[in-house]
Amino acid sequence: MKMSAHGAALDYAGDHKQELLDDLIALLKIPSISTLPEYKEDLEQAGTWIADRLTSLGFEKAGLLPTEGHPVVYGEHLKAGSDAPTILVYGHYDVQPPDPLDEWVTEPFDPQVRDDNIYARGASDMKGQIVASLRAVEAMVHSEGLPVNIKYMLEGEEEIGSPNLSAFILKHAELLASDFCLNCDSMIQDPETPSITYTLRGLTYFELRIRGAKSDLHSGMFGGAIDNPANVLTELIAGMRDKDGRITIPGFYDNVRPLTEAERQEMVSKPDSWWLEQTGAKSLFGDEEYSANERATARPTFDVNGLLSGFTGEGSKTVLPARAMAKISMRLVPDQRPEEIEEKLRAYLTANSPPTVSWELENLSSCLPSISERDSESVRAAIKAFDAVWGKKPVFTRQGGSVPVVGLIQDLLGVESLIMGFGLPDDNLHAPNEKQHLPNLYRGIETYIHFMHEIAKGA
Amino acid sequence: MKMSAHGAALDYAGDHKQELLDDLIALLKIPSISTLPEYKEDLEQAGTWIADRLTSLGFEKAGLLPTEGHPVVYGEHLKAGSDAPTILVYGHYDVQPPDPLDEWVTEPFDPQVRDDNIYARGASDMKGQIVASLRAVEAMVHSEGLPVNIKYMLEGEEEIGSPNLSAFILKHAELLASDFCLNCDSMIQDPETPSITYTLRGLTYFELRIRGAKSDLHSGMFGGAIDNPANVLTELIAGMRDKDGRITIPGFYDNVRPLTEAERQEMVSKPDSWWLEQTGAKSLFGDEEYSANERATARPTFDVNGLLSGFTGEGSKTVLPARAMAKISMRLVPDQRPEEIEEKLRAYLTANSPPTVSWELENLSSCLPSISERDSESVRAAIKAFDAVWGKKPVFTRQGGSVPVVGLIQDLLGVESLIMGFGLPDDNLHAPNEKQHLPNLYRGIETYIHFMHEIAKGA
Repeated sequence: MKMSAHGAALDYAGDHKQELLDDLIALLKIPSISTLPEYKEDLEQAGTWIADRLTSLGFEKAGLLPTEGHPVVYGEHLKAGSDAPTILVYGHYDVQPPDPLDEWVTEPFDPQVRDDNIYARGASDMKGQIVASLRAVEAMVHSEGLPVNIKYMLEGEEEIGSPNLSAFILKHAELLASDFCLNCDSMIQDPETPSITYTLRGLTYFELRIRGAKSDLHSGMFGGAIDNPANVLTELIAGMRDKDGRITIPGFYDNVRPLTEAERQEMVSKPDSWWLEQTGAKSLFGDEEYSANERATARPTFDVNGLLSGFTGEGSKTVLPARAMAKISMRLVPDQRPEEIEEKLRAYLTANSPPTVSWELENLSSCLPSISERDSESVRAAIKAFDAVWGKKPVFTRQGGSVPVVGLIQDLLGVESLIMGFGLPDDNLHAPNEKQHLPNLYRGIETYIHFMHEIAKGA
Repeated sequence: MKMSAHGAALDYAGDHKQELLDDLIALLKIPSISTLPEYKEDLEQAGTWIADRLTSLGFEKAGLLPTEGHPVVYGEHLKAGSDAPTILVYGHYDVQPPDPLDEWVTEPFDPQVRDDNIYARGASDMKGQIVASLRAVEAMVHSEGLPVNIKYMLEGEEEIGSPNLSAFILKHAELLASDFCLNCDSMIQDPETPSITYTLRGLTYFELRIRGAKSDLHSGMFGGAIDNPANVLTELIAGMRDKDGRITIPGFYDNVRPLTEAERQEMVSKPDSWWLEQTGAKSLFGDEEYSANERATARPTFDVNGLLSGFTGEGSKTVLPARAMAKISMRLVPDQRPEEIEEKLRAYLTANSPPTVSWELENLSSCLPSISERDSESVRAAIKAFDAVWGKKPVFTRQGGSVPVVGLIQDLLGVESLIMGFGLPDDNLHAPNEKQHLPNLYRGIETYIHFMHEIAKGA
């Protein structure tokens, strides 16, 4: 590899591993939690940290562009000339809340290296990927120069469903014009198995609120005569899936595109033991017509993400609660659409909620599922880049998560996304003890360098 | 009434209404919340306030007697002589937590009088009743003297299920020896309808905890392959009652003593409109074989008192929670027993919980249902006392709530309880804006004075 045209960039990357760690620790220390309003200034601080780094790498217009919510980090490096391809690099600098706090081995915003991993909220999702891409750019800038034009667009609201991103993209469509998008918010199969994600599940996420009496009641005085919204909530939710995890909202599967036998054959399946080891669950769950891997990536789901009602402190309080709330979400697969699923959910609630209570359903976020082209120029470049670093071709995988921006960028800018990041499936995303495997990042930087050069050559 | 032997006591009570209010406000200001450990000192302060008052009324041995938890207020006034009856006055000086705080019109521990009511946590349950009994004693002490011997036993743990009361009673059985117990923790039907409670429902209260993966997971990565304990919790709870409120835990009704036609005839039923007005519920709920009044007082129930799982803040977090918790309780009627119900609940959970999760059930409190003798000396005295003050005989009512101490005192001291307090069914017990109707307390003081004299005469 050192003999390639970009050997100097690879050498630079190899010589500056400590700086990767320093950068990562600096960025991970900033609690840029977009879900909680009290972290607004931390979001700005994280965005500014990245924008300053872009400036120091010779990017122009580098800074924070406002939205109705948290700002977008933008910066452009267009010195490769108008004949060279232009890549829009997408990522997000916000992170999930760290709770439950008591399950973290070390503090979520005090990054710690143990073995080959760095532990902190956002390490894998996705500050690790942002820093890897910046270090790849730095390696090229400090050696042969960037062979392509690059525009960075890093949002601060991915973890709250990107509520202001489409308005932002529409407003700045000209600025963001590019040949394709490199989406770094992703992972590979395992440290020795590079992979390219070709499908993503969609998502639709709701808060369901049930209201009974005008205020909490004494369960001894009113229990039996007045309905209990917490009981009703459990009944409504229980009615939406069966014991095998099949969703029983009428019509839910109407638009699910069946998996072809060929697709099922080529899917790289993790063994059942992997799922159990990763999660510590007692046993696997779900419709046995499909493998665990298929159920987690290629089939839709219905999950309760939160429950709250009545008295939840220590001890007992004999309250008949006035209200009960659930956060519920469905992962969607092609060709389901969030608005169609919301309609079916509302029809179910209308048909099944008893006259004793009232209900309210709020859609908190939604995004379309997506399937990408598998023989584009960017995919061919990615295959060569992975091969150069790992010595093997990547496998194609479906990803169970949702990356709303992929559909959005396709819709609004008319470009495809190549999804290439270097997290791992066991990184504890959105959970305590989130980590990033550091060797993945070192290889990731090399892969990005190879990739940019393959793109420049026209793969 | 002024012509009776105890006219001076009644006059004294009439002349000191302001002091009732002053006393009540002083006691209500102390947040003696037994559920929450941080209020330990407030409990002690409330107990001391009452003990000091007993001392000033000439009670001996007045003070706080320790238990494993919060202390018991004790004091005895035995100057009526060994031929006079001895009454054990039972009550509790602890209160429920005030949450949800934002639904209170005025602060829960800053008592405020509006119209004829005083609003504060504990106003009706049951500091109002304690203060009324003390004011009745004061009126007699300051006039003709007490015609009976009185022992006060006021616990500080009623709202957490009286975990240390049976040990206390056993230890002090000799000290507590009496002819019967006057339990002031109660209410009358409405301001113009005095009533005597002759049955109480029992209670058994649990925390049910479901555990799935070892930590919270990303619902995109694992949803579909790994079960969700919050979904499982809703399914288990939903399976325990049907849409008419009938409990479907196998065998749950086995030991329910059927209501006789005669009992049903004589039950004073509040109209359906009363239940709707009191609660603001959209419609009534429950098995239509029984009236709302019967369902709330003479039939068992199953209620969810609290739910907690996953992410419950603002916005969305796509978490697949590792744990889910529910507080659930059943009101029991004769001849159900808490330990029998727990056994049936455990059998249900064993049979119905899926292999994907583990569950844990903790019993947080339990008490037996009770039915009292309706033609005892104390009941006859109470009828005469109510008649003297209200000009009408009391009705007999069933109460839907649970007063564990009634069964306990019967078991351990061998004496019956007369339940006589002056709250109202719409006092918002255990809920925001708890209140006490002040005219009820003025009449209550007079009723207690008449009652003590009727007892002294041998009703």
